[in-house]
Amino acid sequence: MLPRGIIPLIGLRPVSLGIRPSFVCSSQRRELASAEVLPQLTKDRYPHVKRGEYAKLDQHHLGFFKDLLGPDRVITDPSDCEGFNVDWIRNVRGYSQCVLKPKTTEEVSKILSFCNDNRVAVCPQGGNTGLVGGSVPVFDEVVLWTGLMNNVMSIDETSGALVCQAGCILEHLDNQLAEKNLMMPLDLGAKGSCHIGGNVSTNAGGLRLLRYGNLHGTVLGVEAVKADGEIIDCLSTLKKDNTGYHLKHLFIGSEGTLGIITKIAIQCPPKPKAVNLAFLGLKSFENVLKILKKAKKDLGEILSSCEMIDESSLESVTENLKLKSPLSIHPFYMLVETHGSNKEHDEEKMNKFLEDVMEEGLALDGTTTNEPSKMKAIWDLRESITEGLMKDGYAFKYDISLPTKHFYSLVPVLRERVGDIAQRVCGYGHVGDGNIHLNVTTRKFSQEMLDKIEPFVFEYTSKLRGSVSAEHGIGFKKTKYVHFSKSKESIALMKKLKAMMDPNGILNPYKVLPC
Amino acid sequence: MLPRGIIPLIGLRPVSLGIRPSFVCSSQRRELASAEVLPQLTKDRYPHVKRGEYAKLDQHHLGFFKDLLGPDRVITDPSDCEGFNVDWIRNVRGYSQCVLKPKTTEEVSKILSFCNDNRVAVCPQGGNTGLVGGSVPVFDEVVLWTGLMNNVMSIDETSGALVCQAGCILEHLDNQLAEKNLMMPLDLGAKGSCHIGGNVSTNAGGLRLLRYGNLHGTVLGVEAVKADGEIIDCLSTLKKDNTGYHLKHLFIGSEGTLGIITKIAIQCPPKPKAVNLAFLGLKSFENVLKILKKAKKDLGEILSSCEMIDESSLESVTENLKLKSPLSIHPFYMLVETHGSNKEHDEEKMNKFLEDVMEEGLALDGTTTNEPSKMKAIWDLRESITEGLMKDGYAFKYDISLPTKHFYSLVPVLRERVGDIAQRVCGYGHVGDGNIHLNVTTRKFSQEMLDKIEPFVFEYTSKLRGSVSAEHGIGFKKTKYVHFSKSKESIALMKKLKAMMDPNGILNPYKVLPC
Repeated sequence: MLPRGIIPLIGLRPVSLGIRPSFVCSSQRRELASAEVLPQLTKDRYPHVKRGEYAKLDQHHLGFFKDLLGPDRVITDPSDCEGFNVDWIRNVRGYSQCVLKPKTTEEVSKILSFCNDNRVAVCPQGGNTGLVGGSVPVFDEVVLWTGLMNNVMSIDETSGALVCQAGCILEHLDNQLAEKNLMMPLDLGAKGSCHIGGNVSTNAGGLRLLRYGNLHGTVLGVEAVKADGEIIDCLSTLKKDNTGYHLKHLFIGSEGTLGIITKIAIQCPPKPKAVNLAFLGLKSFENVLKILKKAKKDLGEILSSCEMIDESSLESVTENLKLKSPLSIHPFYMLVETHGSNKEHDEEKMNKFLEDVMEEGLALDGTTTNEPSKMKAIWDLRESITEGLMKDGYAFKYDISLPTKHFYSLVPVLRERVGDIAQRVCGYGHVGDGNIHLNVTTRKFSQEMLDKIEPFVFEYTSKLRGSVSAEHGIGFKKTKYVHFSKSKESIALMKKLKAMMDPNGILNPYKVLPC
Repeated sequence: MLPRGIIPLIGLRPVSLGIRPSFVCSSQRRELASAEVLPQLTKDRYPHVKRGEYAKLDQHHLGFFKDLLGPDRVITDPSDCEGFNVDWIRNVRGYSQCVLKPKTTEEVSKILSFCNDNRVAVCPQGGNTGLVGGSVPVFDEVVLWTGLMNNVMSIDETSGALVCQAGCILEHLDNQLAEKNLMMPLDLGAKGSCHIGGNVSTNAGGLRLLRYGNLHGTVLGVEAVKADGEIIDCLSTLKKDNTGYHLKHLFIGSEGTLGIITKIAIQCPPKPKAVNLAFLGLKSFENVLKILKKAKKDLGEILSSCEMIDESSLESVTENLKLKSPLSIHPFYMLVETHGSNKEHDEEKMNKFLEDVMEEGLALDGTTTNEPSKMKAIWDLRESITEGLMKDGYAFKYDISLPTKHFYSLVPVLRERVGDIAQRVCGYGHVGDGNIHLNVTTRKFSQEMLDKIEPFVFEYTSKLRGSVSAEHGIGFKKTKYVHFSKSKESIALMKKLKAMMDPNGILNPYKVLPC
């Protein structure tokens, strides 16, 4: 029996969700991107960033690429290139005149070897779902798109090791694994578009890091190509391998600046036999913390996700995208999910947890379900927020780690600071991991607003010993702010590593490393 | 009610266990080591390894060290140095004439800066519990012992982040955490002596990696000192921090050759409310695999350890150490442990699992308990094997990852190959992670035996795409065999990294990198 105050999701009608990034395949999205209003060129919006001394694309280069890949896999038509030049949140825009579509590691190796010899700058791109401008060119870098490197090499049902090429789409991998009762250890809103190579290159976090850990823990091996074209094969599928330096970690999270990941081996957990999801409405952030603590304690090893959404964030999907929420309006909402192996035990734990939460007055309203379509409808509310916010016009996006007790503190402070010139100041995210997505939206990009937010947000975060990029990475947009989370010695070591791995600086220039 | 055939551990008397590494503090162990017969000097046993062109210790060096640390923390008396020169399994022996005992990061920094300037080679040493000769000098390297760097800086009860110095003993940390209902995410037989800095430097695995993941996933941050004395502060306590290169991974598992870890932040899981342990006797390795598969499926998220012991391994503790086994003799044994948050649910899962295992005839005999003292007695059988084997005389030790179905295959092959000249050929270990500890014992070291085993074992492992060192690392003893698990490009990159981080090669020379 369900606890008092918690209603099952019977009343929730299936909602028409429109086209959202997680369900749009890459080619569709590129067309969408070019149909939208284009943002200012990055070189104009950020005039302090100067083009490096790289070669300008010429016939010699194009001739080499076309000989290697054939004409169909070398894109030079400006309108065809456009989708690869703009990030999907329309924050940055390069003007590359050439997109390469390799299918194999050997092709990537030959491209990089040639580009390195000829000082041609290269921007690796996967699903282009990044939020910090890491995967689009800043100037005219050649784009190396991984989308045709989409083969699954093997799935070991016993060990759970998946081996695949870097261009496989996360959701496609998850679907293939599901047939073998396995699942990907990461899940994020962009799963329908993002490539696993991009996920690993950016050390993506997502909705279930709380349970399944981070990619440094779950990636078993990588194959990557260095700037000079040399292939580094660390594609081990073993859970334990202590034979010398753990080189794969050089490529996990370095955003394609130390090498291009071409293949990945990853440890996939079993698909849970029982899944339960609760969606709760709360009156205060204090209660968010109390419920988080209680969920960790009472749900223990079956807790798989614990997310928070504030009123304004949810409003962006209910108003801008017309998605329906099953709850009435509250200042805060939480999603609490369990993954387990025993339906009866899990339901008993979840129901007892919800009963306590309602009885203690920690939640004012709530709903729980284990029906896949209804769970999906609730997850859609959470996963559509990025898109909902974009409909406001322009979104200033911050992805911050803070000690849990300070998790939400920046939102009211910033709301006060920016005042009425904002459309919206809101926060949501992975409260179980101390990672908030803080957004300020305006009708269109505004330098005045940017100056009000930055570097304030980073200074605030740094003071609380937080991280100025929890999971989105540094990309192009945050290079100036790395020093808020990294010591000068660490930054110096990063630069030495870059110089060692890519002495000509051809790999994803202008990204990650502070100028 | 307990399933048929499974008896609770009521009959098992508390056993007197003698002094074993996990319960001996470092100072005691050093005395033991010096009281034992000393092994041949490494320089004589491995004459092909030549001393590097490092400075020989002189009064200028000693004067600097004594000025910095005071006379009490600079050990030069040969008999006091002896325990630091020999590994505890008495495989290798250096002849260092100086042991330094810093207390702070700043002292480590000053020592390394001086040694780098003066080309003095340094061997970092923690609890000296390694099994591949990684933590004792090969020649006369100065030993930098971390044992006085044993402060716990903070334990965050909410997030589970522990911050401590590198010289804290694993078991002491676990005891302190227990007071706050937390636990260390790793556990190994040497816990009573090993230092967390050594654990992280060697990327130690242990008994519960299956559940709590590896150190690349659980270590939140490290502070390390580079060869030139520069301090790299990556001591983040955040679960998510994607601000540039993930430098901490350079130090995790590089065995002190790229820097000396001085502080660690690590994510500690909650101490389980319910623990259950089953000890099973089996007739075949085929049944080990069937039980492993079943344990993963039926115990799911509460499975915390799954270990295998063969008959000969268990014999080494029952005969050599006089520990008592609660089961009759069988060709194979398994330990299956659960950690969970609900006693009733966990017992129900465990009992159902054991009932099936007995009914299906997968186990012939078994016992289960949730009483701490009885669980400890069973774990002692498993954790004492290393010591039991040592009592045979000399142990040739191999720590190998193999695809699960081949996990045990090397033991009978090797038994056949070495024939009667071995005291014992046996295998045990982390079957849940595909990591077997393979041992061949003889009365004393024998070159003939070594030649029979090596490189055969490594070739065999390499053919099956296994790892020649699953968790023990490369240390001194396996540098010749790295190429069996690493490509030549990877080894070249390792050497470039070493040259960049430690251009004078003063840090733990003769270790990890192939000559």
